[in-house]
Amino acid sequence: MAELGTLVLLRHGQSTWNAENLFTGWVDVPLSELGQQEARQGGELLAETGLLPDVVHTSLLRRAISTANIALDIANRHWIDVRRDWRLNERHYGALQGKNKKQVRDEFGEEQFMLWRRSYDVPPPRIERGSEFSQDTDPRYGPGAPLTECLKDVVARLLPYWDSAIVPDLRAGKTVLVAAHGNSLRALVKHLDGISDDDIAGLNIPTGIPLRYDLDENLKPTNPGGTYLDPAAAAEAAAAVANQGR
Amino acid sequence: MAELGTLVLLRHGQSTWNAENLFTGWVDVPLSELGQQEARQGGELLAETGLLPDVVHTSLLRRAISTANIALDIANRHWIDVRRDWRLNERHYGALQGKNKKQVRDEFGEEQFMLWRRSYDVPPPRIERGSEFSQDTDPRYGPGAPLTECLKDVVARLLPYWDSAIVPDLRAGKTVLVAAHGNSLRALVKHLDGISDDDIAGLNIPTGIPLRYDLDENLKPTNPGGTYLDPAAAAEAAAAVANQGR
Repeated sequence: MAELGTLVLLRHGQSTWNAENLFTGWVDVPLSELGQQEARQGGELLAETGLLPDVVHTSLLRRAISTANIALDIANRHWIDVRRDWRLNERHYGALQGKNKKQVRDEFGEEQFMLWRRSYDVPPPRIERGSEFSQDTDPRYGPGAPLTECLKDVVARLLPYWDSAIVPDLRAGKTVLVAAHGNSLRALVKHLDGISDDDIAGLNIPTGIPLRYDLDENLKPTNPGGTYLDPAAAAEAAAAVANQGR
Repeated sequence: MAELGTLVLLRHGQSTWNAENLFTGWVDVPLSELGQQEARQGGELLAETGLLPDVVHTSLLRRAISTANIALDIANRHWIDVRRDWRLNERHYGALQGKNKKQVRDEFGEEQFMLWRRSYDVPPPRIERGSEFSQDTDPRYGPGAPLTECLKDVVARLLPYWDSAIVPDLRAGKTVLVAAHGNSLRALVKHLDGISDDDIAGLNIPTGIPLRYDLDENLKPTNPGGTYLDPAAAAEAAAAVANQGR
């Protein structure tokens, strides 16, 4: 049996709304200057380590698409095949989209706030159809766009795309870059590493640092948890997240 | 029979080598600042006229890919399907690639210079395999990369892609953006408008101004010559080219 290709995950960097501390979800905001710099850094790591993608899969959101464009240009792989799908989008944050995170925490309390952010199966309240930050009139989704999602919902809508679009590229021996979001990549890593519904809450993927997975023929990682192309920077980012709560 | 989709051609703007007056061909140089501005202008015209692409076809060269990325981002269509193919590449300029245009003219004389630039079937001398500006060791092409091309060669390698990749998108009713180069777009326009081998020498497509073609079911333009989204700017660009020889 032919050896599988290599999977490389890349989480987009800071967006303008990250910088303003707003819930974003499916709202299509651009990268900030820092986010563009993170994408360049991701591309430099691909180039330096010689991990050169043959195909890229992105969500339909600008911050992931721009991250892929910038990183691939830096790595001199701007010309590879491109696939895009809404199933790689960030989790839909429902009625929280466009709201300030601190204000939501103050209004609903720490417990409810963390439940919406980190629980596996509790979605935020639904966003109102046709409202400023909903997507049900966006031409790329139409009226079937979700009105809210929990991480469990993301896993359910992501896996069909993994099976039907990404796995065939891996089985063809390609190096596959997936440029996506905190929660769509957590959903994928949960599946790959067999992480439980409870334990996934503690997993955070740093931005802008490509994460390589080597897979066996049953699509199980031979390097569980994956391998960051810049392990020191990834450890630093993880420590920063751990310290946020203190 | 369903109505055909709309074809939109977009020639990339100034590259760093255009600015330095070098023959470029398949050498993969980036857009200059002016070229990026031209791409933004192209995207604004798509947005203002509501001519919103459903799919984009690009060459494998950075200056066309960046033009598409920039224009589509401005037009809020960054998320559409992407197809890339070497058959949309600029004409390969053979041994002239990387050479200064003025120096070539001084060395070989005006007549030979214009023959290489504008004749239909006289290619420049072949580039040496493995030399600095050849593409036969580039992973995206490999040893089969051309060593030189005349416009006739471009027509011959472009048309199979037109038939097999672009026409099906048009028959599916899509608005199709083709982001490419002076000579690959001249080759396509020659085919669409039935321009003779002699007359094509006089045709120049301005940069950064989307050119719309409405096609009947036999793929013949109902607006021969196409329609520029900014006719005044296109006329100005054509006049500037006509005055270059004076």
